[in-house]
Amino acid sequence: MKQLMELEFLGTGAGSPARYRNVTSIALKLLDERNAVWLFDVGEGTQQQILRTTIRPRKVDKIFITHLHGDHIFGLPGFLSSRSFQGGQQPLTIYGPKGIRNYVTTSLRVSDSRLSYPLHFVELTGDGEVFSDDTFRVECRQLDHRITSFGYRVIEKDHTGELLVAKLQAAGIKPGPIYGKIKAGQAVTLANGEVLPSQEFIGPAQKGRIVAILGDTRQTANSYALAQNADALVHESTFGKKDGRLAHNYYHSTSTQAAAIAKEAHVKQLLLTHISARYVGHAAHELQTEARQIFPHTRVMKDFEQVNIPLPNKKK
Amino acid sequence: MKQLMELEFLGTGAGSPARYRNVTSIALKLLDERNAVWLFDVGEGTQQQILRTTIRPRKVDKIFITHLHGDHIFGLPGFLSSRSFQGGQQPLTIYGPKGIRNYVTTSLRVSDSRLSYPLHFVELTGDGEVFSDDTFRVECRQLDHRITSFGYRVIEKDHTGELLVAKLQAAGIKPGPIYGKIKAGQAVTLANGEVLPSQEFIGPAQKGRIVAILGDTRQTANSYALAQNADALVHESTFGKKDGRLAHNYYHSTSTQAAAIAKEAHVKQLLLTHISARYVGHAAHELQTEARQIFPHTRVMKDFEQVNIPLPNKKK
Repeated sequence: MKQLMELEFLGTGAGSPARYRNVTSIALKLLDERNAVWLFDVGEGTQQQILRTTIRPRKVDKIFITHLHGDHIFGLPGFLSSRSFQGGQQPLTIYGPKGIRNYVTTSLRVSDSRLSYPLHFVELTGDGEVFSDDTFRVECRQLDHRITSFGYRVIEKDHTGELLVAKLQAAGIKPGPIYGKIKAGQAVTLANGEVLPSQEFIGPAQKGRIVAILGDTRQTANSYALAQNADALVHESTFGKKDGRLAHNYYHSTSTQAAAIAKEAHVKQLLLTHISARYVGHAAHELQTEARQIFPHTRVMKDFEQVNIPLPNKKK
Repeated sequence: MKQLMELEFLGTGAGSPARYRNVTSIALKLLDERNAVWLFDVGEGTQQQILRTTIRPRKVDKIFITHLHGDHIFGLPGFLSSRSFQGGQQPLTIYGPKGIRNYVTTSLRVSDSRLSYPLHFVELTGDGEVFSDDTFRVECRQLDHRITSFGYRVIEKDHTGELLVAKLQAAGIKPGPIYGKIKAGQAVTLANGEVLPSQEFIGPAQKGRIVAILGDTRQTANSYALAQNADALVHESTFGKKDGRLAHNYYHSTSTQAAAIAKEAHVKQLLLTHISARYVGHAAHELQTEARQIFPHTRVMKDFEQVNIPLPNKKK
């Protein structure tokens, strides 16, 4: 089984759309893991960006909103309507700060938009677990922005190790329902009364991956907690190193502040986004250069760039 | 003075954005006439489309919404926010069906968007005059769509004729404040007691232009009234001639229904828009061909195409 967890950056700009950077949206593609795509923020024009990718809107079953500024949410009503127009049937859940439900339901009601699928909302009340099932857990923590802003930590649960078939056969255990019980970690009593310790016949667990995606924020303690040992940290870099005062005044971060968090939290790679339109061409590259002086595995992302998140014990 | 009234089609698609047609927005550029641009409908991504034109958001001082379906309004909050972000100071007025104020104010409030300019709303209650000043008048009439939908008739008031200076001088009237009075049509009494009939010294008036821009609709009597003798009629053509039943069921029009209105209303040119994504390439061209069999001066518009609306007594 392939395990192609990927991030695709649908919009990497800040505030207003610019010619080459649309406003924020990030897709976490979990096609092998869950046959699903999760969106983080849906700025205006996200559905138009998606038209230029292989993402199918009906595969999007969860949307996580970091905060309610327009450049992070104004694409939601259009995306939801088009998902319906294209025949989406599966339920969709939106997680986000209080107010997201009012915004979306008002937009859909005023525009007489009737969706072909159930739409659920989870309005976040504070730090903690947002979602959990057999394979993934998502946590959130509040950041430091002009309005309530959250960061998300997506935790893939460890995969059970593989069944050691050769070892089972060497012990005289033939294939059958018993293999399933052993794989499930259940102790099994054989016909001869022998109790089989299942863990001896299961290979090492495959550690799951961690992706941290943070909303707009100043440098703050919760960022470190969210990013701890992450395989990828997506962090805003609205400003460059020299504009620390601007960043502070507007409740944003600089490239080097993001890099400091990545280093301190021991992440594997730092992906910078939410780049102000003042940094184009060489200036955007400069953000990357200055961040790399602190944390070498840094990239300034562009619209439509994709990043693979490899399994921890595989070579990239 | 140039009189370059122009229509620019920012989005010519229907329902959902497609790769080559964004959802509806039409700019009426009145730069010579009023140093302003008026938008008709603002579908999602309109501000991104505007980035690829010479239109400056701060020049947009009126927005006319035909109806509240998402593909006609979901770009409004983003456009309004970016106009502010770019330092727009001049007031902006939005005209549209009841509900437009609630949609816009909820979107701006939830997203904590504070505008740098006064925003006014005029919610339409029925057929009649929407706006009038010295140079333009706008009327609206209700159409026949699944939800309340309006058409707009933009009427440029006639330009006063030019002062016939040679004739004045021949009559012995020397340049001075008296010329202004004559130009303004006031009767003037000369020092010798003679009363000067000002109309004799003013050339023929320049007739103003009429542009009719209709929202989504079935063929309906009000369409003819709005389009009567218009210099340009912008009409939807969601479907082709063969799909009249679909058009009727979804409260839309076909290419040939639009052409019949253009012919009957004696318009100068018919501009078809709101083209369903099912018509691409040759199929879109076919819409034009079938409409032209009824009304030859028809064009199926594409995104970013511009149309000049010449003064009536000038050759095109």
